[in-house]
Amino acid sequence: MAQNIVVVGAVALGPKAACRFKRLEPESQITMIDQSSIISYGGCGIPYFISGDVSEPQQLQSTSFNMLRDEKFFDDAKDIRVMTNTQAVMIDRKAKVVHTLNVIDGKNDILPYDKLVLGTGSRPKQLKIPGSDLKGIFPVSDMHTAIEIKEKISGGSVGKALIVGAGFIGLEIAEALADLWGIETTVVEITNQVFPRFISKNLAHMVQHHMEENEVSFHLSEKVLRFEGDETVQSVVTDKRTIETDLVIMAVGIEPNTGLARDAGLKISPRGGIVVNKQMQTSDPYIYAGGDCVEIENLITEKPGYFPLGSLANRQGRVIGTNLAGGNEQFDGAVGSFVVKLFEISVAGAGLTLDVALQEGFDAISAFIVQFDRAHFYPEKDLMYLELVVERETGRVLGIQGLGNTGEGMVGRINAVAELLKHKPTTRDISNLELAYSPPFSSAMDIINALGNTAENILEETNRVMEADEFIAWWLEREKDETFFLDCRGWGNAEEYVEKYPDHWKSIPQDELSERLGEVPVDKRIVLICNTGVRSYEAQVTLDQAGIRNSYNLQGGMAAVKKLGFDI
Amino acid sequence: MAQNIVVVGAVALGPKAACRFKRLEPESQITMIDQSSIISYGGCGIPYFISGDVSEPQQLQSTSFNMLRDEKFFDDAKDIRVMTNTQAVMIDRKAKVVHTLNVIDGKNDILPYDKLVLGTGSRPKQLKIPGSDLKGIFPVSDMHTAIEIKEKISGGSVGKALIVGAGFIGLEIAEALADLWGIETTVVEITNQVFPRFISKNLAHMVQHHMEENEVSFHLSEKVLRFEGDETVQSVVTDKRTIETDLVIMAVGIEPNTGLARDAGLKISPRGGIVVNKQMQTSDPYIYAGGDCVEIENLITEKPGYFPLGSLANRQGRVIGTNLAGGNEQFDGAVGSFVVKLFEISVAGAGLTLDVALQEGFDAISAFIVQFDRAHFYPEKDLMYLELVVERETGRVLGIQGLGNTGEGMVGRINAVAELLKHKPTTRDISNLELAYSPPFSSAMDIINALGNTAENILEETNRVMEADEFIAWWLEREKDETFFLDCRGWGNAEEYVEKYPDHWKSIPQDELSERLGEVPVDKRIVLICNTGVRSYEAQVTLDQAGIRNSYNLQGGMAAVKKLGFDI
Repeated sequence: MAQNIVVVGAVALGPKAACRFKRLEPESQITMIDQSSIISYGGCGIPYFISGDVSEPQQLQSTSFNMLRDEKFFDDAKDIRVMTNTQAVMIDRKAKVVHTLNVIDGKNDILPYDKLVLGTGSRPKQLKIPGSDLKGIFPVSDMHTAIEIKEKISGGSVGKALIVGAGFIGLEIAEALADLWGIETTVVEITNQVFPRFISKNLAHMVQHHMEENEVSFHLSEKVLRFEGDETVQSVVTDKRTIETDLVIMAVGIEPNTGLARDAGLKISPRGGIVVNKQMQTSDPYIYAGGDCVEIENLITEKPGYFPLGSLANRQGRVIGTNLAGGNEQFDGAVGSFVVKLFEISVAGAGLTLDVALQEGFDAISAFIVQFDRAHFYPEKDLMYLELVVERETGRVLGIQGLGNTGEGMVGRINAVAELLKHKPTTRDISNLELAYSPPFSSAMDIINALGNTAENILEETNRVMEADEFIAWWLEREKDETFFLDCRGWGNAEEYVEKYPDHWKSIPQDELSERLGEVPVDKRIVLICNTGVRSYEAQVTLDQAGIRNSYNLQGGMAAVKKLGFDI
Repeated sequence: MAQNIVVVGAVALGPKAACRFKRLEPESQITMIDQSSIISYGGCGIPYFISGDVSEPQQLQSTSFNMLRDEKFFDDAKDIRVMTNTQAVMIDRKAKVVHTLNVIDGKNDILPYDKLVLGTGSRPKQLKIPGSDLKGIFPVSDMHTAIEIKEKISGGSVGKALIVGAGFIGLEIAEALADLWGIETTVVEITNQVFPRFISKNLAHMVQHHMEENEVSFHLSEKVLRFEGDETVQSVVTDKRTIETDLVIMAVGIEPNTGLARDAGLKISPRGGIVVNKQMQTSDPYIYAGGDCVEIENLITEKPGYFPLGSLANRQGRVIGTNLAGGNEQFDGAVGSFVVKLFEISVAGAGLTLDVALQEGFDAISAFIVQFDRAHFYPEKDLMYLELVVERETGRVLGIQGLGNTGEGMVGRINAVAELLKHKPTTRDISNLELAYSPPFSSAMDIINALGNTAENILEETNRVMEADEFIAWWLEREKDETFFLDCRGWGNAEEYVEKYPDHWKSIPQDELSERLGEVPVDKRIVLICNTGVRSYEAQVTLDQAGIRNSYNLQGGMAAVKKLGFDI
């Protein structure tokens, strides 16, 4: 029997659900409404539109075969009716109708449905602080504001920009402004790191250092108090300083857009997302919801989670489309995979960081290593920085995060582990992970496998590690003479440091250590240093065997210290 | 209690097992013997040494921190004794000793062991045909022959080269010779495709076409009968022709090197590999074996499989090292992940091809799609070609293979699925695979997800497909007038074909099809054509709805046809 389907929201989830349903039930009717005039665009492309990598807004709204996904396209190519500039103002669940308002002509309409789909998405969080209504302050919420931002920049009136929030959108926009438009760009972030909750402080400091090298300034642990200006914003006042600016981008996070669902009495989670089951049905079985307005299961914590990603919205859309047509497809949840490109690096991850794992009640540790992304003898290669979060008792892997160059090598490693996370892997699974091997793509013992091995060694306490941050702190206090800094590399690597710091930097190459144990003090803590942490681990085994156990292996070695921008 | 360990074979597995064991039990003794003078090198780097990408053989034998992994290195840095040029001639399992022969001075020795490790590797298969002993015919078996080959090439006497075998080593060497040395290179292969059993014929033809564009010649389905020449090889006689050559590379496969194990009475599989359990123990619990000389479980077929890969050897080596020290580590098996770079493309896969799946008794189908590797609006992107092999009844995914550019995008997709294959995923898991998304790395609906969706549609018979090869065959018989070739793209794409073939090429853009059904004949089979197979699938849904069901969707569209090198 032909059905009558209404879809609210025509970006990502809505169109995917509609198209899938219509292919399965061509005889049914489907109407998709959206309050905007621009629909079915790739919202994740907005930073690339602002940067100029993507020149026209229409490119984000086109299919891969260059057809504009507008009302006519959906009508002609998909037999889907689209009403733009149309707001859903109320759902009458008893009557099974949606009341709508045309935002242009003010006309009201009533759309009956057999089944309803909510893809109402998210909205930018707002700081309720003085001056928020000044001109020149923009959220990154949709194509309309994106076009406004780009017009303002390309007008040439923006010399300085300030971004509030060091999350994904904030830093992507920071790159767009600084790199391609040459704007003096400052990021203010209320927490003490970039990408809070997504990567460790250690990795965050590396990301920050890389962006600072590319002329982006940061003020962390700093709270924006108000905006000042005469009609247009001219300065931002934080709890520590006043910063002049011509443009403010608000990127302090997003939240589910659930007013319509809430008013209709659908179940909303304490965190604010629409509650759905694995079939993507709301508490009303005739109403489906998905994308940025819902909560789905975090497959690591097995608690509700919020994963506002266009990729997941698309997958959920297809599940809804199938189920609208009588199928029984499920969307299980997510582990929170992400990747972002920033200047010359990519940052990616999946699952929990160590901090989040601890907050969630896991007794967890993390392992961090630095290794070449390809066979070390292959001419083109780069160092990769990778961290694994592991539950101490079980060895269960809870998350992985890392930093590499802008190729797909970094995200490829994360993707190889991300899917596996759903099957509760242990370090052993990571040690034996079967990555395709060829020297132009990986090492025989790939960084992923080495990371699993290192995590296992840390759990077994044969590898006792310290982080680069901690090393720097100890080094800065070297005059206290509490720490013995032992360089385990060959003399060629160690020489410059020994000559610069003869009283503090000791060179004993790892392969000479067992013969020169007498030179190692037993009354100090010992920091073992090499290029990446491999030889220093071997040195630790040698010291342990000699009964000298007060040593710490510098994880990631001097490569990690340098990546933090610290110069010894 | 300190143990005495002997390891036979000092490449990949042996050194890894020895180092791991020694770190866990520093007080024990370990002796590693190898018949060669060059040990612990990266054998997979040989093609890059021959090409010149890697200039010195020592680079393949060095650590990532540029220390040569020779006898002295293992002694000083690892406290492992190494005997090079030393052959293991006999294992006396009762006495628990290995009889050795020094191949330089002819001296015999006897090494007692508590536990023994066999890492005897593989040897090249040989064709027992006349002329095989002529000079200028080389296997790619070890560093010594690699050095000989490179010396001969760099001497300038090689204008033409012939490679027997179109497997991984054969084609990697073909690239090395043709690309970097400018040698006129011909590959002769006995089967009817390159990479037999590793990729489909469709993908194989694409690979072959790409190599032909790069000046490598192929003779497939052709058997080498003999080599001719006066001391040095001058020509190769096949069952179809005689080919002049200055150099022959034999790359017809490898087989486990198991003479020592066989003579010792250890269990050998019918296929010829040493039989080991998941702890990597042979039929003698005091003898471990791993790497290219053993069989391990194929985790797709759950039968014994042969996976001679340096990467797996390293992982198995670590498992053996742990178990030698009293651990209980396991190596479960492999799905056979691979990747290879050839000129401007990479080819990768995991699990079974359709042909192999059918041979193994699975009732299977395959889905093939072409899609951009990144968001289609992102400026830098490439088409990717990907095939999924699925069991018909259950939707279980049995394998995945594909072709992309030389970045890590292709291998990253394969790796994301490879590990999952061990958990018996279905198309639904592939449709919902959680890949990290950002426009510079992937699409919101990534090619992997689209591939899962397509496979599902094929299984449900809503998408009835044909391959590009088949399309070409039908097109070449177009004068028979049995087929209606319907171009579903916009007029801009279709115009040139319609003008060239007005009697055979019909243009109805997909978004006009429902209005122009009268132009579609009902008495012919219909081929639906677009750029990549997306719009043609939509067109098929439209035709189906109109009751016209005799249509075939060209998988991968014109992009697949072009990749095969076919010009319409």
